[in-house]
Amino acid sequence: MIQPTDKTFTATLQDKIDNLNKPKGSLGRLESLALQIGLIQHTLTPCLTHPCHILFGGDHGIGFEGVTPTPREVTWQQMINYGLGGGGVNMFCRQHGFQLRVVDAGVDYDFDQKKFPHVISRKIAYGTKNFLHEAAMSPGEWKKALAVGTEQVDVCAAEGCNIISFGEMGAANTSPSSVIMHLLLNIPLEQCVGAGSGLCRDGVRHKYEVLHEAVERFLANNEPVGVKLPLMDGEKVGTYFAGFEMAAAVGGMLRAAERKMIILVDGFIMTACVLLASRIEPAVMDYAVFGHQGDEGGHKLMLEGMGAQPLLHLGLRLGEGTGAICAYPIVQSAVNMINEMDNFSHANITKYF
Amino acid sequence: MIQPTDKTFTATLQDKIDNLNKPKGSLGRLESLALQIGLIQHTLTPCLTHPCHILFGGDHGIGFEGVTPTPREVTWQQMINYGLGGGGVNMFCRQHGFQLRVVDAGVDYDFDQKKFPHVISRKIAYGTKNFLHEAAMSPGEWKKALAVGTEQVDVCAAEGCNIISFGEMGAANTSPSSVIMHLLLNIPLEQCVGAGSGLCRDGVRHKYEVLHEAVERFLANNEPVGVKLPLMDGEKVGTYFAGFEMAAAVGGMLRAAERKMIILVDGFIMTACVLLASRIEPAVMDYAVFGHQGDEGGHKLMLEGMGAQPLLHLGLRLGEGTGAICAYPIVQSAVNMINEMDNFSHANITKYF
Repeated sequence: MIQPTDKTFTATLQDKIDNLNKPKGSLGRLESLALQIGLIQHTLTPCLTHPCHILFGGDHGIGFEGVTPTPREVTWQQMINYGLGGGGVNMFCRQHGFQLRVVDAGVDYDFDQKKFPHVISRKIAYGTKNFLHEAAMSPGEWKKALAVGTEQVDVCAAEGCNIISFGEMGAANTSPSSVIMHLLLNIPLEQCVGAGSGLCRDGVRHKYEVLHEAVERFLANNEPVGVKLPLMDGEKVGTYFAGFEMAAAVGGMLRAAERKMIILVDGFIMTACVLLASRIEPAVMDYAVFGHQGDEGGHKLMLEGMGAQPLLHLGLRLGEGTGAICAYPIVQSAVNMINEMDNFSHANITKYF
Repeated sequence: MIQPTDKTFTATLQDKIDNLNKPKGSLGRLESLALQIGLIQHTLTPCLTHPCHILFGGDHGIGFEGVTPTPREVTWQQMINYGLGGGGVNMFCRQHGFQLRVVDAGVDYDFDQKKFPHVISRKIAYGTKNFLHEAAMSPGEWKKALAVGTEQVDVCAAEGCNIISFGEMGAANTSPSSVIMHLLLNIPLEQCVGAGSGLCRDGVRHKYEVLHEAVERFLANNEPVGVKLPLMDGEKVGTYFAGFEMAAAVGGMLRAAERKMIILVDGFIMTACVLLASRIEPAVMDYAVFGHQGDEGGHKLMLEGMGAQPLLHLGLRLGEGTGAICAYPIVQSAVNMINEMDNFSHANITKYF
């Protein structure tokens, strides 16, 4: 059960922020971020400890419908590559001191544990089923995948982590993310579907048609009479469409919020996971810091639909969690601000605002 | 004399960036940034060494016209405060390992060098003249202020610095910046004038009227017949309107570009300084990395007018160089990307784009 942050503490925190040695509001987004982190940790002196990044991998049945240019084998190849340190996620983890955990939640490949010990094996299945025809996973698999996330977050927390980000590797996983966004935010599907890892215009059209068909079939069987889409059940939508790597991230996010950790959110796919999580436990949003607005067309709309303000806009669309990790120094800046910046009276500055 | 970067090297650099282990273009702004830095350093393996931040202080005659809510004494009080380590600039310098140099280029105060040895004394005068009535400085003072910047950059370079940012402290200095933007980019003055450190609506109106009057008088005496505003002379506009801290920054930027250093550009005022510098030596733009788009109304327009793409959008309006320094880890990420990210052939990933 996630506890919402204690909003009665807001005024006290805001007062400290307003009396730092700067014109009120002049550190912009850093100030609202410091407020959020102060609320999460319920303190005037927040801190960041042992940042961790959990990268979940999984394959997608919908990938067989030609919705992505990424060959299926790239999922397992990249999972291996993260162990060699040559991925985007590796260098950003090194730069910002994140511990990286690479977890196989449902990749279509048997990793040789002797050769690739860095891949933590928590495979639910060799990829999800094809949601054009049937649910991606069973309710039991959904629960198991959530539990993978819970367990991994618990490991990080035990090591002293209080800020955590999640990433994914899973060819085709912008497709379920687009559908989740469409169903949970009631945004027209056309606006939710984008180029993913690099589809051409015809490819995007085909992807849209496949997803449209999948949604039609799903709704025919699942839409409760009289219930509007935005109210749809996160668990139902997640079970039907999400990947195992996404479900694991949902579970991880829910646990992280339960443990009052800061959740640093990556791009399109991880935002869809927060959205799912927020339909299971709305208070998860109190703990989510949105790191980056990516290049995937629908991401801006999804963030707006969730009332989320991302920290960075760097046009990244690599996934893996890179957008979240790149935002970490901004979070540090906000924490440094509230802890290290002098206040007016101490600094002997004429207060004029 | 500033050498433009060697654009014939672009294809070689782009080829390396395109073959890193990621979908082409998927690291967005980091990729264009890596390209720019590779061109500046003319290498496939750029590096960042000994980052320095030079904060110039100066007072403004126009401040006596009620164009800012910041009392004049805040300039010297803050210059002293930077030595105590409690300013915004201090904490961000600490966070990102910048050496900070605080330089009095024209503050209306005598700093006791024994008590405040961190304030480097290069005072041209006790503030500029009031440009509503006369030129802010003489041509000789302009040259002296530029030389202050040159000297300070040379000191940093001698210590091994290849990436440098500039900041300012000077009550009222959004006013000259607005006028410079108006005169050099031909953007209507109304769109160049904003709230600065916190003017109310009436205050902004008054500021506009003062600046409008100043510009009218300047043009009556200085506009060459038949010469359009955007072609106006950077030196002439700078001498008439800029502060000593701004002129010093212009000199510093020109020298940094001459030395092929990366110039990390802060917000509204420092962008106006790059604009001035670019009208003296256009090639300075090759070396300028725009760190942050600030909250001051005109900043977005000025950046667009210069074709500049800022890295961060955090709504900062503190000045001091904070927006530039906060962007430093993004620059590091771009450099790490081109140096540390594996390429496809080495990582054994199916190349699909």
